[in-house]
This record gives sequence, C-alpha cells and structure tokens, in this order.
Amino acid sequence: MRGRFQTDIDPVKFSPRTSIAQVEEGEEFAPKFDENGSIPCVTVHSETKEVLMFAFMNAEALRLTIATGLAHYWSRSRRQLWKKGETSGMIQHVGRMLIDDDQDCVVIEVKLTKPDGGGDEASCHVGYRSCFYREIPLQPESGTAPKLRFTEREKSFDPLTIYANTPNPTQL
Amino acid sequence: MRGRFQTDIDPVKFSPRTSIAQVEEGEEFAPKFDENGSIPCVTVHSETKEVLMFAFMNAEALRLTIATGLAHYWSRSRRQLWKKGETSGMIQHVGRMLIDDDQDCVVIEVKLTKPDGGGDEASCHVGYRSCFYREIPLQPESGTAPKLRFTEREKSFDPLTIYANTPNPTQL
Repeated sequence: MRGRFQTDIDPVKFSPRTSIAQVEEGEEFAPKFDENGSIPCVTVHSETKEVLMFAFMNAEALRLTIATGLAHYWSRSRRQLWKKGETSGMIQHVGRMLIDDDQDCVVIEVKLTKPDGGGDEASCHVGYRSCFYREIPLQPESGTAPKLRFTEREKSFDPLTIYANTPNPTQL
Repeated sequence: MRGRFQTDIDPVKFSPRTSIAQVEEGEEFAPKFDENGSIPCVTVHSETKEVLMFAFMNAEALRLTIATGLAHYWSRSRRQLWKKGETSGMIQHVGRMLIDDDQDCVVIEVKLTKPDGGGDEASCHVGYRSCFYREIPLQPESGTAPKLRFTEREKSFDPLTIYANTPNPTQL
C-alpha cells in the first residue's frame, strides 16, 4: 500500500553512516535524521538565491524530492507528508540540492510557481514571496524591544483566497 | 554571575506570543524556541547570498547576536554557547537578520573573516568556504545510490592547523 503522494519510483538509497571521514569527505549519501526522523531543509530561490522558507523533510519527503525533482516536506504541525503546492498550486521545481558537512541539513534551490487562484509566484502561506519578510534590527537602543521591519511591501497573493478552508499552520 | 561570553549589555527583549496575527503580521519580536530551547539559524553570505551554514541558537545566543552584531550559536554537540570564530578566528559580522512568518527560524547575512592561522575567509570546520560543498544529484538512475558531487574544489584553510586539539563536532 502506497502513500497518497508516493509514485512508482525506486526508493532512493541512503548509505549507512560509518565514519566521520565518510560523512564529511566522501561521495556516499548518508543523511542523518533527528530524534523525530526529520532533516532540516533550507529552500532558496534558484536565480536570486533569496532564502524562501525553512522546513523539515522526513525520509519519505527527502526521497520523493530527489526522485521527482519537486519539493516535498514533512509537516510537523499536521504530521503528514506535504507536497509543496498541493493546496495552493505553488509547486517548487528543484534545480539543485546540496547537503552539509555532517549530512544533517539540506539546501534546495527552487523555481517558484504562481498560485492556482491568482497572484505572483511565492512561497509563504501568509502571502509573501519569502517567509523571511521581516528584519530584526541589530544592536537596538538600550532598554527597548526590537521592532521588526517589513522587507516586503505587498503580498504576492491573497492567502484568504488561496488557502480558503485550510487551517493556518502557525502555532503559538 | 555572567557566562563566559556575556558582556555588559542590556538583554534584548522578547515579546510574549499572544496571537497568530501578532506573530505573523506584527512588528513585535516574539521568537519561538523548540523543545530544546533552540531556534534554527540559516547563515548566508552578505554579498553572494550563498548558504554558508545551518546551526541553532538558544535565547542567549540569539540575544548576543542581536546585541553585538557578531554571530553566536548554541552548540548542541558540545552543549555550550559558541561564539563563531572563538577557536579559529573566523568571526562572522552580521549585516542583516531576518525572521520567518511564525518566528521560529532566523536568517543572518554575514561577512566572513579569515582564520587566524592562515587561509581564505570561510565558515566550515572541514575547511571549505560553505558547509554545503556537495551536491545531491536529482532523479538518479533507477536502482543506483546517489553519488555526491563536490561543488568546491579546494579547501579554504587546513582544518588540522586551524582546529588543532579541537574535537570534531560531527556525530555519526
């Protein structure tokens, strides 16, 4: 029995982790998953290199991303596999995937697509192009709380239209 | 009693998290720490925007980074505050800091410095400029294990010189 997004692909093989030299200096793909079975993923734009989002993949999401070239994540709040764009249409086409020194984090470079319901290409469920649409001021004046500054002026799409009837994933 | 890297700075104030609208659309800085008291941090180069490293900050590291403009992290393997460059000299000067929609991840844009013991500016303890020096090939041939491809040809510094007598942080 296959999962909802599983296709008839060979499962991508992971190598066992045998030594620090193998993990850091080798060509074997030996990803490390955390205590929740997840590996963090940084998603950047293929052309501009702007950081678009940060999320987690489980083994299945990682395998599906590699096998299909489309970004899949593991939603920790919904506890389910999440093919990016399945609700909104904002599919992410992966151009390049990188892994870090100890193989416990990946970067994917993606092309964005526009939401099905209208708007510009984007990534963030709030409606902005990037999830990182606010800046934290450095070295704030003594005794004051930092006040976030918006770096995006307008939303790329209307989240109430695109994500109608979908619960907001943000948790307090 | 202050910690080893604490300086005489006012602690940076965090706001309580009161609503999804406040967290996602507001100007209040209300970071969310995970069950280990950590918040993930993506470090990119100020000029090239290349992703250099991925690490965690605890509340103290986050406050010190904001207050000093120098990158501080929380080392999960060593379980201690980690001012980047304290061993190697490869200090990271933060030019800009961003936070994501639900305020549970930050991005810092940094300028790199050269290691004290010689070599080019870099970030990765293995000796490469970025920790993400290998590419995972997408859509590998059926039945074969993905073979990582190096995207950096040469190390920026000799890790045996720069990190002499320092345990390797990579864990299997």
